[in-house]
Amino acid sequence: MNLEKMGQAAQLAAFELATTATAVKNTALAIIADELEANQVAILAANKQDIDAAIASGMSEALIDRLLLNEARISAIASDVRNVINLQDPVGAELDSRVLENGMRLSRRRVPLGVVGVIYEARPNVTIDIAALCLKTGNASILRGGRETFHSNMALVKVIQAALAKAGLPAASVQYIEQPDREYVSQLLKLDQYVDMIIPRGGAGLHQMCKENSTIPVIIGGFGISHMYVDESADLSRSLDVVENAKVQRPSACNSLDTLLVNEKVAATFLSRLVERMNKAQVTLVADNAAFSLLEGKASLLRKAETGDFDTEWLSYTLGVKVVTDVDEAIFHMRKHNASHSDSILTNNLQAAERFVNAAGSAAVYVNASTRFTDGAQFGLGAEVAVSTQKLHARGPMGLEELTSYKWVGVADYLSRS
Amino acid sequence: MNLEKMGQAAQLAAFELATTATAVKNTALAIIADELEANQVAILAANKQDIDAAIASGMSEALIDRLLLNEARISAIASDVRNVINLQDPVGAELDSRVLENGMRLSRRRVPLGVVGVIYEARPNVTIDIAALCLKTGNASILRGGRETFHSNMALVKVIQAALAKAGLPAASVQYIEQPDREYVSQLLKLDQYVDMIIPRGGAGLHQMCKENSTIPVIIGGFGISHMYVDESADLSRSLDVVENAKVQRPSACNSLDTLLVNEKVAATFLSRLVERMNKAQVTLVADNAAFSLLEGKASLLRKAETGDFDTEWLSYTLGVKVVTDVDEAIFHMRKHNASHSDSILTNNLQAAERFVNAAGSAAVYVNASTRFTDGAQFGLGAEVAVSTQKLHARGPMGLEELTSYKWVGVADYLSRS
Repeated sequence: MNLEKMGQAAQLAAFELATTATAVKNTALAIIADELEANQVAILAANKQDIDAAIASGMSEALIDRLLLNEARISAIASDVRNVINLQDPVGAELDSRVLENGMRLSRRRVPLGVVGVIYEARPNVTIDIAALCLKTGNASILRGGRETFHSNMALVKVIQAALAKAGLPAASVQYIEQPDREYVSQLLKLDQYVDMIIPRGGAGLHQMCKENSTIPVIIGGFGISHMYVDESADLSRSLDVVENAKVQRPSACNSLDTLLVNEKVAATFLSRLVERMNKAQVTLVADNAAFSLLEGKASLLRKAETGDFDTEWLSYTLGVKVVTDVDEAIFHMRKHNASHSDSILTNNLQAAERFVNAAGSAAVYVNASTRFTDGAQFGLGAEVAVSTQKLHARGPMGLEELTSYKWVGVADYLSRS
Repeated sequence: MNLEKMGQAAQLAAFELATTATAVKNTALAIIADELEANQVAILAANKQDIDAAIASGMSEALIDRLLLNEARISAIASDVRNVINLQDPVGAELDSRVLENGMRLSRRRVPLGVVGVIYEARPNVTIDIAALCLKTGNASILRGGRETFHSNMALVKVIQAALAKAGLPAASVQYIEQPDREYVSQLLKLDQYVDMIIPRGGAGLHQMCKENSTIPVIIGGFGISHMYVDESADLSRSLDVVENAKVQRPSACNSLDTLLVNEKVAATFLSRLVERMNKAQVTLVADNAAFSLLEGKASLLRKAETGDFDTEWLSYTLGVKVVTDVDEAIFHMRKHNASHSDSILTNNLQAAERFVNAAGSAAVYVNASTRFTDGAQFGLGAEVAVSTQKLHARGPMGLEELTSYKWVGVADYLSRS
């Protein structure tokens, strides 16, 4: 396979998609959804190959479950595609339209980015998800899924491309890099002549690799340490629920709580009440010295924090706990420990809330709310392409608009610059 | 010098700048402007060192003029800084504020990017320009100017840092990489832990180097082939002025015209009239076969186009000329020849205009206007940091808003995710 040719084909497809009417894109999405259901047998057969290989390799049941497709999951994927049809197409909207003094009518018009490269791991639904969101926004996509779902992905892409043909759209609107060789990922990351954005969806290692090797802009995101600071003025009873929600509801999510910071004035009271809930949920508390002495003998799973613990995104039933003197020390700690995703203050004090919100450097900052809200659906974006923790282009949950760029359009009457 | 320490200092300064009130930032800018004028003697003495070295190295007069400072130019630079004071500070504005169904008040709040790294060549005014725009938007900056203006830049940065101290702001808000060694540029490009955006201001080589080596998002821009298509329906007399303006007004600018595409139905008439103006301005015409035969014997400076000519950004009194059958061939040519900056159609036909505007992939697209309008001041942005030709983050002229990111702010009443 020649990735150069793939890039060229994607760019040509992107030129066509850029001026394709929303109705045509929606028809293609509807056909994709229908064909996914119509081709269930073939897709499930391909998925079985992946599952068999995973079992043979000794993969854990939890991971195998992430790869697994069944009738219900295929229906859910098709239903997600139908939901995309109902989202508003952001392409073509004009921003900041105005008439300049010289009479030129100037505006910024939303356009597709062009070609989006997506590198992802595990779950095969990402293949359909990303393809659908890119198609809706008039972008061509080049996909590269994980080795573990190769057969499933190939079957899904086959369905997509057949659907595109039926809709009269270029098959190269959605392409898949079939070769398992890592070399092809490196090639993709250098296709800056054709590819406009790279979205890595996976762990920190994948992001680091993209950051270091890509000559194409990369959306970095999906991780970062999440903090919650319980201020002395907080309503402690109500805070218990919010802390528990942030930690326990879904510990594997990137917006789940990693570090709890507690004001020293309420630390003894609050922690002695929190520890019951944490014990019940079997949360391991990783405490600094002050917190440790308050929790010792009460917490059933407890250890002293060591170097690196407050820089660890747990993604599990583990919670860092630290006692701080005030909101400024909380902010100081957050700055030192990669607060870039979601952070929250629990307080009844206006100054503390303002100070925290203004100073926190995270993509999402909350007052009296769980960090778990950082999510495209929760924010009402309708779809989520990725959660960016970088500052360029988009930050936090990225929806359809974040898959677009803009071009300046100036209309005049044979106007020269003076 | 240790760039790691420089990055840390810049980040600390950025934390402080992020919550600095506009009035304080404006005071610092006013002091910078005053101190520039008060320290003219020292600045001019430093500049003389650069000029002497440039003369000794045999640099051309045109280039030396770009390096030269004098009293009038320092006043102009100070005046530019005072203009920045009058621009609106975009930081803190809230976008898309709304209340979610669960009662959370959610908005996106404009925040500084953080730390901006700028690598530039030649003109010393860029040092002040970028420092002022970054300061206004609450960003710390790390500057790296060209070797030719080293002494001038050092004198200017000294003035800036003294002014920052007077205003009570951290000196590390504006830092300069003194070492001439290229190695330090490479180091800067890897400081992704501290630096949020890299702006290269210089030639294609510099941009390519940044693209290949940076682990920090880079704003690519400032070049691309500019095209103008003269449609069969165009008002030819009025088109002459616009084409002349686009090519001749300032050929060294990146928004000046590189390639003229003429519809075959009007090519003979239009080119025979245009050639007089091009001869007068001593423009060399680089023509495809069809245009060559129309221009032969009329154009005083004429040659046949060779491979690569239509991919050349001339930045001089040279113009590519090609005859095309229709707007679609014009678009086809533009796509093949890196139309990414500014392109224009001259036409009286609505369908042709719509087709051109929709299909052109450039940062700025015009109907019946000169490509020379692509400029921050012309667009009313008040300032121009760079002209982006990439699609992420910002496209075309970048003003103050493009030096900001946003954070999501969610305020609720002890709210957990259900």
